[in-house]
Amino acid sequence: MSTNGFFSKAEFLNHWQGHRNLTRNTIEKFPEKELFEFSIGGMRPFAELVKEILTVGLPGLEGMVNNTTEGFNHDVPFNTKEALLAEWDRQTPLITEYYNQIPEERFPEHFNLFGQFNAPIYENLLYFVDNEIHHRGQGYVYLRSLGIEPPMFWDR
Amino acid sequence: MSTNGFFSKAEFLNHWQGHRNLTRNTIEKFPEKELFEFSIGGMRPFAELVKEILTVGLPGLEGMVNNTTEGFNHDVPFNTKEALLAEWDRQTPLITEYYNQIPEERFPEHFNLFGQFNAPIYENLLYFVDNEIHHRGQGYVYLRSLGIEPPMFWDR
Repeated sequence: MSTNGFFSKAEFLNHWQGHRNLTRNTIEKFPEKELFEFSIGGMRPFAELVKEILTVGLPGLEGMVNNTTEGFNHDVPFNTKEALLAEWDRQTPLITEYYNQIPEERFPEHFNLFGQFNAPIYENLLYFVDNEIHHRGQGYVYLRSLGIEPPMFWDR
Repeated sequence: MSTNGFFSKAEFLNHWQGHRNLTRNTIEKFPEKELFEFSIGGMRPFAELVKEILTVGLPGLEGMVNNTTEGFNHDVPFNTKEALLAEWDRQTPLITEYYNQIPEERFPEHFNLFGQFNAPIYENLLYFVDNEIHHRGQGYVYLRSLGIEPPMFWDR
């Protein structure tokens, strides 16, 4: 009998990091000014969506590893494309490092993420990726609206 | 030791059907005309994105179950909101039925989806959900641009 369920712990990490790579490529497609200023329908500019992603995934993992349930803070001082990408790259190996510290046995356990999202750990981890795909898809519309071709969706 | 890897086969189905429920609610938010005609930046109207979702997930599962690798066809005659939603609802129990026919042991096996996407079955299944989240996120921008509040992202 398989011991991997739907897929393995390592395969999820690979899936997440692949999506992160695609999101990084999406950030790079934006001109500096439009990254921080362009929006549609009163929504947040793409830089704000990226800040949300940056302040949910790694801080969430840190909470799971250290069993802390402090709130999140999306108001972070990454005010240039270079600063956003530098933070993105800083987090890449740390996400792998923290993720690997969570024993697979904990994945079905409930954890009160940020003191407000009480769900099984695997659901919180899926949420990080789902939320990133959701907001990146919105970034694709911004890019198309600016006349810029987004990265290929399947190219991780 | 856990035998569920990242999460179980049943948990993935629940995750997928939860996302499908949210996408259904998103379709419902669109006025009939805008569902089929409104677009941004030369992209497809939301109805076309929904047709893509409808012609990838269930047909893909059927291919996996029957070991057939015919191509997909997104050009389907669902030309009203009612017809799109009726097809959506027709597929809901069929997705569960076909998914449950795929033994977990096959998930790591490569399958040449639609004769052109040769990847482990679990990756193809994840792609169905990722693609739906991606396009639904785009639908959210269309709705906001139309002055309509989308469903809450976390409400599955």
